[in-house]
Amino acid sequence: MHEDSLTTARLIETAHLLADASGPAILRHFRCAVPVDNKAGTGGFDPVTEGDRAGERVIREHLGRLHPDHAILGEEMGHSPGSAAYTWVIDPIDGTRAFITGMPLWGTLIGVTEHGRAVAGMMDQPYTRERIWSAGDTTYWRGPDGAARPVQTAPCPTLAEARLTTTSPDLFTEPGERSAFEKLKRAARLTRFGGDCYAYCLLAAGHIDVIVEAGLKPYDIVALVPIIEAAGGIVTTWEGERPEGGGRILACGDKRVHAEVLRVTSDR
Amino acid sequence: MHEDSLTTARLIETAHLLADASGPAILRHFRCAVPVDNKAGTGGFDPVTEGDRAGERVIREHLGRLHPDHAILGEEMGHSPGSAAYTWVIDPIDGTRAFITGMPLWGTLIGVTEHGRAVAGMMDQPYTRERIWSAGDTTYWRGPDGAARPVQTAPCPTLAEARLTTTSPDLFTEPGERSAFEKLKRAARLTRFGGDCYAYCLLAAGHIDVIVEAGLKPYDIVALVPIIEAAGGIVTTWEGERPEGGGRILACGDKRVHAEVLRVTSDR
Repeated sequence: MHEDSLTTARLIETAHLLADASGPAILRHFRCAVPVDNKAGTGGFDPVTEGDRAGERVIREHLGRLHPDHAILGEEMGHSPGSAAYTWVIDPIDGTRAFITGMPLWGTLIGVTEHGRAVAGMMDQPYTRERIWSAGDTTYWRGPDGAARPVQTAPCPTLAEARLTTTSPDLFTEPGERSAFEKLKRAARLTRFGGDCYAYCLLAAGHIDVIVEAGLKPYDIVALVPIIEAAGGIVTTWEGERPEGGGRILACGDKRVHAEVLRVTSDR
Repeated sequence: MHEDSLTTARLIETAHLLADASGPAILRHFRCAVPVDNKAGTGGFDPVTEGDRAGERVIREHLGRLHPDHAILGEEMGHSPGSAAYTWVIDPIDGTRAFITGMPLWGTLIGVTEHGRAVAGMMDQPYTRERIWSAGDTTYWRGPDGAARPVQTAPCPTLAEARLTTTSPDLFTEPGERSAFEKLKRAARLTRFGGDCYAYCLLAAGHIDVIVEAGLKPYDIVALVPIIEAAGGIVTTWEGERPEGGGRILACGDKRVHAEVLRVTSDR
């Protein structure tokens, strides 16, 4: 079967199966002492865990069976081409530092692009048993009680009222990035560090107003784009372009604060 | 009854009752849109939530009934003197920024000092249903499954091997603090931001090796001291003194890395 056009509901149905399968495989390694590889060799520190590889293996196995003609882009095992318009963009453990330090703010990201545009996305946090996903024009959050509820971003007209987060100030390594972030931090109502993918989901659910990050890869952001957009938010690059390629990312719950922040991030 | 000498077990029994009562009172306000007061007036941002006040009220009510002659020092309602040697040092929501942004890394801190020295402590996270406490010479972690397991800090002989965390780089406001932190960050294996009290519990459970913070209040640290010490760790000021007074705090899972970090933090 060549799947030229699938409904979002069908894609999300598959995403639930993938998350159901990857969660236990990854969780086995959470808060267990595992040897931490160093992907980057002697320079820098880029942790990889057994959980990352176990999660991606399970997801790829299921995708190969369910949608054999879809392409896959995964953090661990790279790109597998397909003949359909769809690419599954997956990161088994987004937030490896959170994972390594035992903080339950990492997540499994499962996104789908159609001709390069993000059309469906899911974040699964198997330890806290939370899952959030886009389904057409609605974003749902399922908590430990198993009930799925629609969520929406919060109104936030100005940066002065905004709850701002970023995973780490050390993301800002290129010229102008750090000073733009510092400028936003001074103007925002409050700033909190840490969060990875989980923070973008909290933005979709109305608890965070602005997230600015840099140096993201496509698999760090693709799954989150439909989650944010279907909840009423907006996510772009720091220049206001489509975010699917990663890089410098700006996510906001309210288009008004997005316009205000964009003036700072695009003028570096 | 004048309680001159209570066992740690008796104090922890009370702490369980307090956490059982405060958890639901606080959780009602988590991830709900609540007006955020500004304790610091027009300067700075120091969020207070209704949850903070609701939690402290419940804890004080129970303590007044269970140990009427004990003193209480709480974040929200200040100091209530007592005639016994014991002071309950409580922070209903440690990590108010985490709380406000919806991240489940805040916690309820319940500590006890005897003649000024921390002798019992508990951290309760009612959303993830995790609780950690010291009981004599053992620290226990209870997860969502309800089973309590003893935990220990991890061996970490050198800073080069250490997982370092701090809640925010913006904690370091005094001269020399920021440069000491940057020096530690460059030398450590990895650094992660965010965590508040939850990070100290992860250190006690062997997932983090070094935490350095500054500007802490007694109620931010007292409950965590017995948790870390009974798990095999060490927590002091940046000068190696007892930590009960707060200020600049250094917590390590291994005495060897503590000695190495202390050379940096005490030489500013």
